[in-house]
Amino acid sequence: MSYPKQRITLITLGVDDIERASDFYAALGWVPSGLTEGMVCFQLHGQALMLFGRVALAEDQGRPGTMLGTGAMTLCQSFDSRDNVDAAFAAALAAGATALKTPEAVFWGGYSGYYTDPDGHVWEVAHNPFWPLAQDGSLTLPEGP
Amino acid sequence: MSYPKQRITLITLGVDDIERASDFYAALGWVPSGLTEGMVCFQLHGQALMLFGRVALAEDQGRPGTMLGTGAMTLCQSFDSRDNVDAAFAAALAAGATALKTPEAVFWGGYSGYYTDPDGHVWEVAHNPFWPLAQDGSLTLPEGP
Repeated sequence: MSYPKQRITLITLGVDDIERASDFYAALGWVPSGLTEGMVCFQLHGQALMLFGRVALAEDQGRPGTMLGTGAMTLCQSFDSRDNVDAAFAAALAAGATALKTPEAVFWGGYSGYYTDPDGHVWEVAHNPFWPLAQDGSLTLPEGP
Repeated sequence: MSYPKQRITLITLGVDDIERASDFYAALGWVPSGLTEGMVCFQLHGQALMLFGRVALAEDQGRPGTMLGTGAMTLCQSFDSRDNVDAAFAAALAAGATALKTPEAVFWGGYSGYYTDPDGHVWEVAHNPFWPLAQDGSLTLPEGP
């Protein structure tokens, strides 16, 4: 079967302590799907996000002992207003996130803040007036110029 | 408006050379949406993937000068057969990817390989017999035990 080329089935976050990481996402209201030893999966729009041991992930990648890094791949959640960005940012800090940048107006005309989860994975929370979201929260990019 | 908590609007890859990065994904058959100075966006299932300068991304995160790392957040594409995993892996290498692990049978009952894109972002290509994909390539996690 031929699937669309542009798709991501699974996003895996390498973590030092699965229970701590899982507690963080639970504190944000996320609910895991099923239970498998050594990993936690969350259902997103047509894909999954998994928490998996950082050391085990390096082994799985075929490079055991490598200290895997974070930061250059970031995940963003968009919201329909600046107030909801502020609320999401505050909720993340309350859940144990570390602030990188308090939400502020940014050069591209939106409003955005950044934090890291307990393992250094970077999340952005943003309001982008040029990227309206569907009722279910999904994004379809506007037609380009 | 209240959106689902478990969703990712945008995945951003920090890259050293946007044209080189864009050429890599184009060689895999990806088609960008629109054109904006200094970034390239691709439409995925209900979300977007963006290529953005690594230095600019660190600035945007509120920590200019930070060398952002890679590897601990990985992106996976699943396929319906081992042959299609092998084909995707070969296509990535032909497009300029660096092999981390040639696809092989793995402990959880699937078949998986890893490569990095030109900026060190880690992709997995996998066949997971326990996670059947919908016709459109999307994944809905099976009900847990």
